[in-house]
Amino acid sequence: MPPATEPDESTDAATSRRPRLTPSIADVRRAVRAVLPTADGAAPLVLVALSGGPDSLALAAATAFEAPRAGLRAGAVIVDHGLQAGSAEVAARAAAQASDLGLDPVLVQRVEVDGEGGPEASARRARYAALDEAARSTDAACVLLGHTLDDQAETVLLGLARGSGAASLAGMPAHSGRYARPLLGIRRATTLEACADAGLEPWHDPHNADPSYARVRVRERVLPVLEAELGPGIAEALVRTAEQLREDDDAFEAQIEELIEEICEPAEAGIAVSVGVLAANPAALRQRIIRHVIGSEFGVSLSRVQTLEVARLVTDWHGQGPLDLPGSVRATRAGRYVVFSTTGSTEVLPHDH
Amino acid sequence: MPPATEPDESTDAATSRRPRLTPSIADVRRAVRAVLPTADGAAPLVLVALSGGPDSLALAAATAFEAPRAGLRAGAVIVDHGLQAGSAEVAARAAAQASDLGLDPVLVQRVEVDGEGGPEASARRARYAALDEAARSTDAACVLLGHTLDDQAETVLLGLARGSGAASLAGMPAHSGRYARPLLGIRRATTLEACADAGLEPWHDPHNADPSYARVRVRERVLPVLEAELGPGIAEALVRTAEQLREDDDAFEAQIEELIEEICEPAEAGIAVSVGVLAANPAALRQRIIRHVIGSEFGVSLSRVQTLEVARLVTDWHGQGPLDLPGSVRATRAGRYVVFSTTGSTEVLPHDH
Repeated sequence: MPPATEPDESTDAATSRRPRLTPSIADVRRAVRAVLPTADGAAPLVLVALSGGPDSLALAAATAFEAPRAGLRAGAVIVDHGLQAGSAEVAARAAAQASDLGLDPVLVQRVEVDGEGGPEASARRARYAALDEAARSTDAACVLLGHTLDDQAETVLLGLARGSGAASLAGMPAHSGRYARPLLGIRRATTLEACADAGLEPWHDPHNADPSYARVRVRERVLPVLEAELGPGIAEALVRTAEQLREDDDAFEAQIEELIEEICEPAEAGIAVSVGVLAANPAALRQRIIRHVIGSEFGVSLSRVQTLEVARLVTDWHGQGPLDLPGSVRATRAGRYVVFSTTGSTEVLPHDH
Repeated sequence: MPPATEPDESTDAATSRRPRLTPSIADVRRAVRAVLPTADGAAPLVLVALSGGPDSLALAAATAFEAPRAGLRAGAVIVDHGLQAGSAEVAARAAAQASDLGLDPVLVQRVEVDGEGGPEASARRARYAALDEAARSTDAACVLLGHTLDDQAETVLLGLARGSGAASLAGMPAHSGRYARPLLGIRRATTLEACADAGLEPWHDPHNADPSYARVRVRERVLPVLEAELGPGIAEALVRTAEQLREDDDAFEAQIEELIEEICEPAEAGIAVSVGVLAANPAALRQRIIRHVIGSEFGVSLSRVQTLEVARLVTDWHGQGPLDLPGSVRATRAGRYVVFSTTGSTEVLPHDH
């Protein structure tokens, strides 16, 4: 039974505001310390994205402790998605906890979730827009997110079900722009324990128990079976895999950045890519170049089957006709080029061809 | 109830030897046709590795049908591992089925499984040695293996549990030397159905139901849960992922092959790698170079943690001392080089340093 559920101890901890340094609190603090930016004398602000759940609450407590010691200010931003009855109260309670922890400023951002693209994607979009806005308005140096090792393992398994390779298995990045996820190496149980040790009472989002979410099913039904059948350590193995696949994907992205200028040429209503260069590169790079060009030029995301069909204009050329792809994009082999154009254009050869 | 278990129908099919062309039989035949080598007039031999189980039996039947039509001869090799009571009878029965199908020659290879490195690894080693030997003795152009899409999905999940990145998630290659796996796109259920449709009665290996094997647990407990919770198509998604990660890994391997000569120099009792080159390459390649050099020079396989520690001699150099790695390998930063040597050597600088 964690001490936080004992009212007397909880009150005691809240009063003293000096939780004893337990292993879980130390783990979370150490993880936060490792990602804090360097203060340059101006005491930059670090914002914690706080839901009130155990992960972000433990993160907020650790940041409140570590930031001042690193010469930084620490604040919190709470996003109220307005999706559940009482969400405003949940947000207000989290805001009060943040203030109690000494975080300042504490912002509550109420957002509208329009539901476009599904409830989860839509909520995520609204949330990041609000976090961006909070970071801008407070001139925050970085925003800390509470995703844990368990969240990352779940993300990898969800990506595995999509089957779209390294990019979908790479999980969430530890750093991305102004965002950082210091707890990707910390188990969810550790954040729960850190809250309990500190006498902090986290909010438990009922959505986290709703099996209509794929993520909840992964957490409650898939991961426990993997743990039981393939041995403990499966979550850690998934996260290790994600790290490595992210590195792989980053390396290919960097190689494409280097290549892309010299292998593409503008063509009427589109873009032409050299067959020679596509042929000379290994399949992994060739297919990423094809997806990259079509993605950046036309905003279209090709499936693996479609990508392979385009690649065969290079690797298995026997006079195929043009390929019609999603988004009215057409791929045509024209001499030493594969030309990508929007259908309706009459001229598909590159200018210098 | 599949017709193959009805003795009268089975006898009937065996007598007629002309199974009707059902969808499952057609699927397996098409898959085999796609990998058969081109006959150059000399009627080369294709060997099917036959266990008598549904996968390899369906493969044998399809090969018996397709090979002559492609100007090839088809034979079979049955490996008797001698691990179960009655294994010789199982092998003899599979051999009789192969002969009935018109395969010729049919070889039965009895092997000794020494148990070294675990029962599965040891059996696999003995099996491939026997298959190699059979291919050599018959001068076979290729050996066909009956691994299905389900086997591949299981292999990916087993690799996922290891957590060692693209290499361990890449599954089994469709082609490797003289070996080919034509059924990696075919479900196990299809091979069962193809056997039933052809009146062939496969052997059901009791090991395939023994939950002390991790693979059996993946098949019977893990994959069904993934299918149920993340939707059907999970096995196909795993296989698509494996294909893409294999391409990724192949691309990195090719890049390392290109780089390795120019970045390594011999050093006393070891090898020196240029810090500049390691630093200029992305993490994915840098870490693969480190693993490659230590693997090929000393036969040692580094864990991710060890690899990252070596990488920090490049990316986070602050005067660390030498690192002691498994297999008495030592990694030392020496000026513009990282030097890998066996401990005990006194001189670790590269010759030209």
